[in-house]
Amino acid sequence: MTTYNINVTLSTAKKEKPQAEKLQFGKTFTDHMFILDYSVDIGWHDARIIPYQNISLDPASAIFHYGQSVFEGLKAYLTKKEQVLLFRPDQNFKRFNQSNDRLCIPHIDEDLALQALKQLIQVDREWIPKAADTSLYIRPFIISTESYLGVAPSTHYQFIIILSPVGSYYKEGLSPIKISVENEFVRAVAGGTGTAKTGGNYASSLKAQQQSGEKGYSQVLWLDGVERKYIEEVGSMNIFFKIDGEVVTPMINGSILEGITRKSILQLLRYWGVPVTERRISIDEIKQAYVDGKLEEAFGTGTAAVIAPVGELFWNNEKMTINNGQTGEVSQKLYDTLTGIQTGALEDPFGWVVEVPSIKYFSPIESQDMIEIP
Amino acid sequence: MTTYNINVTLSTAKKEKPQAEKLQFGKTFTDHMFILDYSVDIGWHDARIIPYQNISLDPASAIFHYGQSVFEGLKAYLTKKEQVLLFRPDQNFKRFNQSNDRLCIPHIDEDLALQALKQLIQVDREWIPKAADTSLYIRPFIISTESYLGVAPSTHYQFIIILSPVGSYYKEGLSPIKISVENEFVRAVAGGTGTAKTGGNYASSLKAQQQSGEKGYSQVLWLDGVERKYIEEVGSMNIFFKIDGEVVTPMINGSILEGITRKSILQLLRYWGVPVTERRISIDEIKQAYVDGKLEEAFGTGTAAVIAPVGELFWNNEKMTINNGQTGEVSQKLYDTLTGIQTGALEDPFGWVVEVPSIKYFSPIESQDMIEIP
Repeated sequence: MTTYNINVTLSTAKKEKPQAEKLQFGKTFTDHMFILDYSVDIGWHDARIIPYQNISLDPASAIFHYGQSVFEGLKAYLTKKEQVLLFRPDQNFKRFNQSNDRLCIPHIDEDLALQALKQLIQVDREWIPKAADTSLYIRPFIISTESYLGVAPSTHYQFIIILSPVGSYYKEGLSPIKISVENEFVRAVAGGTGTAKTGGNYASSLKAQQQSGEKGYSQVLWLDGVERKYIEEVGSMNIFFKIDGEVVTPMINGSILEGITRKSILQLLRYWGVPVTERRISIDEIKQAYVDGKLEEAFGTGTAAVIAPVGELFWNNEKMTINNGQTGEVSQKLYDTLTGIQTGALEDPFGWVVEVPSIKYFSPIESQDMIEIP
Repeated sequence: MTTYNINVTLSTAKKEKPQAEKLQFGKTFTDHMFILDYSVDIGWHDARIIPYQNISLDPASAIFHYGQSVFEGLKAYLTKKEQVLLFRPDQNFKRFNQSNDRLCIPHIDEDLALQALKQLIQVDREWIPKAADTSLYIRPFIISTESYLGVAPSTHYQFIIILSPVGSYYKEGLSPIKISVENEFVRAVAGGTGTAKTGGNYASSLKAQQQSGEKGYSQVLWLDGVERKYIEEVGSMNIFFKIDGEVVTPMINGSILEGITRKSILQLLRYWGVPVTERRISIDEIKQAYVDGKLEEAFGTGTAAVIAPVGELFWNNEKMTINNGQTGEVSQKLYDTLTGIQTGALEDPFGWVVEVPSIKYFSPIESQDMIEIP
């Protein structure tokens, strides 16, 4: 494996770390960040870890006007043996480049990105929270930085990784959410950007989310934008149903995001011998299964929540209560197994977890030099 | 009309102005910019004109991750009598707020926005180029600035206006473009963000534009995302056709942008008594009109080009040459009339143009105080 030179400048002032019980999602960031620059003339260059700091951009920068951007989200966990584990980071950087393709952003070197991430985590290792169900949320992202108002792919980019210690998604164990079917707004259609992790998809989703929230629902269930009847995603998660003993999830169709948690769940269910199918699922089918008493479970899947059981589904002025509003057996088992593998508490038969070796960084003066890690 | 207090800090160092023949679109910016801040606690506040400068943002700012943003584009023209004219700026700020609605961004005060724009132009008046067909391009935009990785409307925003002197869109008079029908990618569907001027729409369009450019076409003709047969827009412009003496343009349908140039052209054509209809137009209908020899003209409309005549349309491996690849009579008349009104060369029977009164700003020291303009 190639090693890359990443210039490290350590922060001289350390921020205070938040207490475990006060951790919120995505509000606190660690002492350092990783940056890699791109210009069309020299490609990606100047890989560096620097103290966490503001980014200074010309107001004409492309990111402010035409939204050319991609991001990823993953987590690092501290095991009981104080090992640091990542969950399938190769999959995140692979999808990162797939998103880059769609957004006309140049590919990053996936090996360099993973090495940079490991090295950044080593520098900020003390920021990984220790309490149960906590983790270090990792946000790699690319922004377009050319100062130009023409509608064209930017000639300059920055690839940045920031880290945020996060608390448990569930304060008191898995807790089912209430969701409502979205009939007005559309998340994405084939030919659009639905399969890419890019800002515009999320900006577009806010209005439906806001209206649904006002009615007491925490997420919306998106239907397809063409026929307005097939189920796509829930909020910013993939969705699964258990109907009459079979687990089903919408098939990859050019508009839903290919979730890494989704992919892992499919693999786990097949490993267990649970019948599971990827196919088109209409909202009418879900309603019929509910009426027939065959809608046994529903759950969202994503990096933040891992599993989000659905206790209530609202559609056309009617509430469907699923599994008496309780977390279902399969949902619970998937949550326990996935989080168990992620945190090192359970064996990983799939080779999903990647350990970040422990390397200690010392004073700023010593680390001004180029540092290579294996 | 209410007047607002806008704090003005003049730049002490003036940038060199580019020569008229070297002006490019959206690459050079004037000496000053307008900024207005928003926080959920106090609303919009701290209106100020300051020297053009970089924006410094936390890397976790919403704009870098979830694309919550809107923008507008309009132009100021210097008349032969040295008056400064804006073209329907009220329409831009009205649409700005419509875009804000869709993106869950708080409304701006449209009167304040217009006053701020006028005042900024007064400060940078010397930047308006004088040569024929040049103008000062105006870019108002809003970015979401909360440092938070949760998917939710931002609690903080900045509303910014920047100005860019631009050259003629056409170096040697109106010149027809070649466009190709896009069969793979989709710009927007009803329920999405197609009617809003938000970054995601433009990021999404780059891939199709790039592929079309590789085949020698300068813009793509977008079809609807549901049936993939009805014409939507061309590039980032609205589109018109003249078929057998009648002008037609796609009707407002929840996915196309309601262009201000589009609206003005409809008004002009009706004023002239030219038959014009807003309706659904299929690509098959255009092909049939071409085969029947009834496809007389096609042209895109938007702020940047005003009118972009279409000389060639490529669809399903076939080239349709329109009006012998020449600018049509209606296209030319619309261009001459609209640019004539915009630049004050022709009378404005519609009350479209708004004059920016001439006020001279003096030294930085004098202008530290609050300045009120009528």
